[in-house]
Parts: sequence; C-alpha cells; structure tokens
Amino acid sequence: MNAILTLSLKEDNDMKAAIYKGNKTFCTGESRMIPPGRGEVSLKVAYCGICGTDVHIYHGEMDRRVNIPQVIGHEVSAEVIAAGEGVTGMHPGDKVVVRPLKPGPPVPSDKGYTHIGKHLRFMGIDTPGGMQHYWTVPADTLHHLPSGVSLQHGALIEPLAVACHDVRIGRVEAGEHAVVIGGGPIGMLIALVIRAKGGKVLLAEVNEHRLKLAAELGISGVNPMQRDLAAAVEDFSAGAMADVVFEVSGSAAGVKEMTRLPNIRGRIVMVAIHAAAREVDLFSFFWKEIEMRGARVYEPEDFEAALSLAADGLVPLPALISGVAGIDQVQEVFEQIDRHPEGMKYLIDCNS
Amino acid sequence: MNAILTLSLKEDNDMKAAIYKGNKTFCTGESRMIPPGRGEVSLKVAYCGICGTDVHIYHGEMDRRVNIPQVIGHEVSAEVIAAGEGVTGMHPGDKVVVRPLKPGPPVPSDKGYTHIGKHLRFMGIDTPGGMQHYWTVPADTLHHLPSGVSLQHGALIEPLAVACHDVRIGRVEAGEHAVVIGGGPIGMLIALVIRAKGGKVLLAEVNEHRLKLAAELGISGVNPMQRDLAAAVEDFSAGAMADVVFEVSGSAAGVKEMTRLPNIRGRIVMVAIHAAAREVDLFSFFWKEIEMRGARVYEPEDFEAALSLAADGLVPLPALISGVAGIDQVQEVFEQIDRHPEGMKYLIDCNS
Ligand SMILES: NC(=O)c1ccc[n+]([C@@H]2O[C@H](COP(=O)([O-])OP(=O)(O)OC[C@H]3O[C@@H](n4cnc5c(N)ncnc54)[C@H](O)[C@@H]3O)[C@@H](O)[C@H]2O)c1
Ligand SMILES: NC(=O)c1ccc[n+]([C@@H]2O[C@H](COP(=O)([O-])OP(=O)(O)OC[C@H]3O[C@@H](n4cnc5c(N)ncnc54)[C@H](O)[C@@H]3O)[C@@H](O)[C@H]2O)c1
Ligand SMILES: [Zn+2]
Ligand SMILES: [Zn+2]
Repeated sequence: MNAILTLSLKEDNDMKAAIYKGNKTFCTGESRMIPPGRGEVSLKVAYCGICGTDVHIYHGEMDRRVNIPQVIGHEVSAEVIAAGEGVTGMHPGDKVVVRPLKPGPPVPSDKGYTHIGKHLRFMGIDTPGGMQHYWTVPADTLHHLPSGVSLQHGALIEPLAVACHDVRIGRVEAGEHAVVIGGGPIGMLIALVIRAKGGKVLLAEVNEHRLKLAAELGISGVNPMQRDLAAAVEDFSAGAMADVVFEVSGSAAGVKEMTRLPNIRGRIVMVAIHAAAREVDLFSFFWKEIEMRGARVYEPEDFEAALSLAADGLVPLPALISGVAGIDQVQEVFEQIDRHPEGMKYLIDCNS
Repeated sequence: MNAILTLSLKEDNDMKAAIYKGNKTFCTGESRMIPPGRGEVSLKVAYCGICGTDVHIYHGEMDRRVNIPQVIGHEVSAEVIAAGEGVTGMHPGDKVVVRPLKPGPPVPSDKGYTHIGKHLRFMGIDTPGGMQHYWTVPADTLHHLPSGVSLQHGALIEPLAVACHDVRIGRVEAGEHAVVIGGGPIGMLIALVIRAKGGKVLLAEVNEHRLKLAAELGISGVNPMQRDLAAAVEDFSAGAMADVVFEVSGSAAGVKEMTRLPNIRGRIVMVAIHAAAREVDLFSFFWKEIEMRGARVYEPEDFEAALSLAADGLVPLPALISGVAGIDQVQEVFEQIDRHPEGMKYLIDCNS
C-alpha cells in the first residue's frame, strides 16, 4: 500500500493552491503533493465549498487562529491518489469526502467526545485545508462517496453533515413541528433534513432572496420583520407550537424569538456561533421546562447520514449551489460573497 | 364516605387562618371548614412552610396573580378529617402531604405535561392555600406520609420534591460531579439529594452563614466572591469539570458562571426564576455542546422520591428548620425573614 510518488510541481504547473495571506487577500500558489505517512491518504481534491467560517477568515477575524499564509477550505470532495502504510479500504481512484476533524490528546473533561474535544484541530482552519489540488489527510477522516452522488454534490456533504448532526441533537421525529430561525446554507439544509425525516418545518428568515429559494424548494417561510413569529408558529402548528427550534441566525433578534416558540418541554438547538453574550429569557426555560442543546460539527454517523440522504436524493443539493469557480478565481469569489451575501454555496473546482 | 360536618368556627375560636391583605400585611381570620366535594378531601393542616414565593407575595410582587385577601401557603403537612364522594384510600386520621398543583383544561402545547400545563393553577398562589387550620383539596394532590416521618418534617416534603425533580431533570448519576450555584433552601436540598444519590457535589454560595450550614451538613462549599469558581470546580473534579450544574441563585452572576463550569456535553438545570432576561454565553453552548433544561415544580413521582428519601433518613431535614411559629405570628415571621434572609425554612404550626 505504500505510495510511490512521481508527481511533482515542477512537472505540472496546474497543481495550484489558493493561499490566504491575511488582509482580505488570497494568492495562487503551488500545491505540494505530500506523500501519505502511516495512516494517511493523499487526495486529488475535486471541489471545495466555501463556508461562512472561510468568509470570517477572509475578513481577518480569525487571524489569531489561522497560521498565515495558509491554505484554507474544509468542505471537500476528492479522489484518492495514494494510501499510506496501515491504511485499509482506500484505493487510488476512490471517490471520497473529508470529515475535517483532527482530535488531539484526550483530557478528562472531553468525556470521550473526540469530535469536540479540548485539543481538537479543525482542518482548513487550524491546519492546512482543501482549497488546493493535492491534500494529504488522515485516513479516518474519509468517507466513500456513494456511486449516485457526484463530486460536485460531494462538496456539500460536510455542511449537510452539520445539518444531520443538528437534527439528531434536536431528536426531531416524524410529524413534529420544527422552526428554523435563519435560512443561510446551514439553516436551509437543516430545514431540508427535517423534511426528509418527516418533520413539519417553518423557516424564519429576514432575507427575501432566501425566503424565495425556500419557497422554490417547497419549504414554508416567514419573515419575522413582517409578521409576529410566535403567531406564525401558532398558525403553522394549529396551536401546538414548536416541538423544536433551531437557532441558526446568529442574531440577537433570533435569540429573543427562540424562547417564545417552544411548547411545554420543547427543545432548542443552538447551532449558530454567537461571538457575543446574548440576552436570554431564562424565565421561559423554567416556565415551560425548555431544553436547549448546543450542536457543534458532526460525528462519523452524521457523515454517513448525510451521504445516505444524498444518495437517496432526499435533499435537493443542486439548488443550493450558487456558482462554481476555478481555483484562480478564489479572490473574486470572496469579493462577490461580500457584495451578494444572499448567495448560498460557492464551490471551487480544485482541478481547474 | 360523605363527611358529615359538625365543626364550625362559631364553636371553636382556635380555627384560624393567616390572611394576606396586600401591602406587606397579614391578619388573622377564620378558617372555614369546607365540606369535601366529590373527589376532595378536607384536611386539618399541621404545618405550613414559608417559601421564597410567599416572601415575594408578601412584598406585593405578585398582587396581580393573588386574589387579595387570600390565604397563602403551599408547603403543607396535614391530617385527613373527611373524604368526599368517590375518594378511595383516604381516611380520617391519615397523615398526608399536599402536592399543590391544580391542572387546568389541557391544550395542545401542554403535550400532556399536566404539572406545568398552560392552565395550571398553583394552590396557595392562584387559589387559597394552606396557612390555616382547615383546608379542602383534591384527593389526587395527596401523598401519605410514611410512619417514620413527622408532620414537621412533612412540611419540608414539597421543597424536597422540587429538589428531587431538579436532580431527576439533571439526570445525576452516582460518581458524577455536580455544582449547585446558590445555597438557599432549594439549592441546599438539591445538594443533599445529589449526595443521597451518590453524586459528588460542590455548593457555590456568597452568603457565609449558608456556607457554614453547608459545612455542618458535610457539603463542600465555595464562595465565588473569594475564589474563581471555575478554578474551584477544576480542583474539585480533578480536571473533569462539572457533569451537571444547577443554577439556583437567581442572580446575573450565577448565570455568568454557569456556562464556565460544564465539561463537554455537560448539563445545566435552570431551577431559579429569573424575572429579567440575562446575558448568556451562548458560544459555550455551541463549543461544548452544553445542554440546559428548565425545571419547574414536580410530578407525582418526585413527591414519592422525596417521601422515600425522608423515610430513609437520607436528607437531614431537621437542620433546615430555622424556626416554628404559631399562626398568630405569621406577620412577625415574614418581618424577621426580611431582616435575616439567611434563615432557611420557617414553619407555621397551623394547629396553634
Ligand atoms: N454548529 C456548527 O458546527 C456550525 C457549523 C457551521 C456554521 N455554524 C453557524 O451557523 C450559523 C449559520 O451559518 P450559515 O452559514 O447558514 O450563515 P448565514 O449568515 O448565511 O445565515 C444566517 C441567516 O440568518 C438570517 N437572519 C439574520 N437575522 C435573522 C432573524 N432575526 N430572523 C431570521 N433570520 C435571520 C440571515 O438573513 C441569514 O440568511 C452561523 O452562526 C455559523 O457560524 C455552526
Ligand atoms: N423551579 C422551581 O419550581 C422552583 C421552586 C422553588 C424555587 N425556585 C427558585 O429557585 C431559586 C432559589 O430558591 P431559594 O428559595 O433557595 O432562594 P434563596 O434566595 O433563598 O437562595 C438563593 C441563594 O443564592 C445565593 N446567591 C446569590 N448570588 C449568588 C452567586 N453569584 N453565586 C452563588 N450564590 C449566590 C444567595 O446568597 C442565596 O442564598 C429562586 O430563584 C426561586 O424562585 C424554583
Ligand atoms: Zn464550515
Ligand atoms: Zn414554594
């Protein structure tokens, strides 16, 4: 299984990497093929999606965490080139997606939850990422792409796995009433996963472009700037109110709404990353015995669930792709995202 | 089973009630023996404990909810005098405690949780209470007092049932590390129930009198004004941090602390009633996948758990009784509570 590497950048000028240099700037550099060490696999990246976190990095908000200059990107589909020693079940040509988590040494307070352990490193943020031609990663981060799922759609598996994790944490059951606050890529995927599981879902979103997309996908939406959200949820649920609420807006207004919507023993899933402390109506937690759980990234079973939803065609992934660009265009794409933040998912074609 | 009532106030001037008149004032009035209707039981009240909620009522903070003039009080032990039609298993002379909840007509958003349903009325707040000689209540609010538990200790079963409910909501297991923020009567009882269940418990309290009582009861305490609470929890748990945190202080400072203490997937139980919205560190919920659940009053099984802990002598109830006073002294007792808020539980002897 040891890989014999013959490729090198000197031989092929197309082997590019998009490198974040700080100060809202990417440059195009060389992607070095790093031979796979023990337990590692070298990949030829197919597509890499751009995530809200990448936009935060671009804005310089994470410069303390990102080791500049750095290749970023963590929503990756790829083909296996070579597998290192000790790796089984990964063969050149295999199509895969990457679960970009590197657990660190465990500590007692982790309680074995390696996916969010104290020393976890996130690939593409804390270590080099996938916005490049070659990428060498631990074999246990890989999941095979089912034959019916294209490499383009494969790049959406990582955010879809986030949504699967969130819905699992929310324990949504068929027939339950769910409300998703915030219809960005993550909120929209959560709504679609809930529907795929037989839940009834209402999406609260203030951006009319995103509400329009939801409607096109058959997801009921409401704009809380135009209609009282609790009243809308009462109508939607015929008085039963929300069994589960997903806060995915990251806004203070979303946090104000989230406690008004659950029914007795209703659940809230805190998906959004709130950098600042927020005013929360704790009285409602007591009064209705509300449960709130934070949800962060995913565990391996969430990737498997996402792959199986994609293979079964239960989530309309194509509708979420706003554009595909070459690796030379990364800078332009980030500038465009800043100008048109309502776009959903931009993919970088890393073979371009 | 129909009671034939011969008692009346005209015949016995000792049948008294403490009546809240508003404006920090109680007067002593007559307790009328109301014959038990179908499904009801008439009680001769033995002891009635004073709860923080009663102090709020006394301060006039709940005048909109309390139907003045009103008999208040909801922590009651009693003897059965007479049972109404259709009541089984309740006989004159039986010693009982009252679970003071009157479920109202169910609505869809209740989801069958009658103990906190939308139309729930709380006896002693929304309807007449137990600070009187006679009290007629629905039979299904009664639990028999085990033979080993005195009527005085019986008056502590209601707050102990609150604590049992909270610990059950927190799913505390033997060997787990629990932190209780706030060592008033409810927080202290929660700490004692955790210990009885084999959990390890640290009590955070800013009042030195209450810390001293905790120490006397063998509960480890820490004053977060004197020592960083997260550091204290790290020591207490040998780095494992808190599996579960109970916020029972009702303070903004307690809410600031509560998110710093849990380990990965740690739990928070929101017991305190926070009248105002509080700043909450939602980032920690996401980062550590913290779970928070509100806990309100109790279900029948929590009363059974409390009675069984009391019967087994697993909770030192006598140590929590700060004083016992006659029904004529209710006004004085409330004035004393205002002067010395660190006292724990005052009981009114309703046979006095
Ligand atoms: N838990 C995780 O592991 C995880 C993973 C990825 C992203 N996230 C977080 O999830 C959140 C959503 O991610 P995204 O990429 O979809 O972000 P996004 O910014 O594209 O989406 C947020 C959406 O919320 C809408 N919104 C703002 N205020 C609102 C309000 N008051 N009511 C309703 N909608 C409102 C915005 O219009 C926007 O469409 C972010 O906070 C992100 O950091 C968490
Ligand atoms: N969930 C329910 O059904 C239920 C039932 C009864 C009471 N309660 C609520 O539980 C709370 C406690 O009730 P109680 O009767 O014990 O009240 P209490 O006021 O006697 O106790 C609160 C304790 O918290 C301490 N405290 C204040 N700030 C603190 C801080 N920063 N850190 C640590 N300790 C701090 C105070 O010194 C006090 O001893 C109240 O909010 C009450 O309304 C809820
Ligand atoms: Zn991401
Ligand atoms: Zn009470």
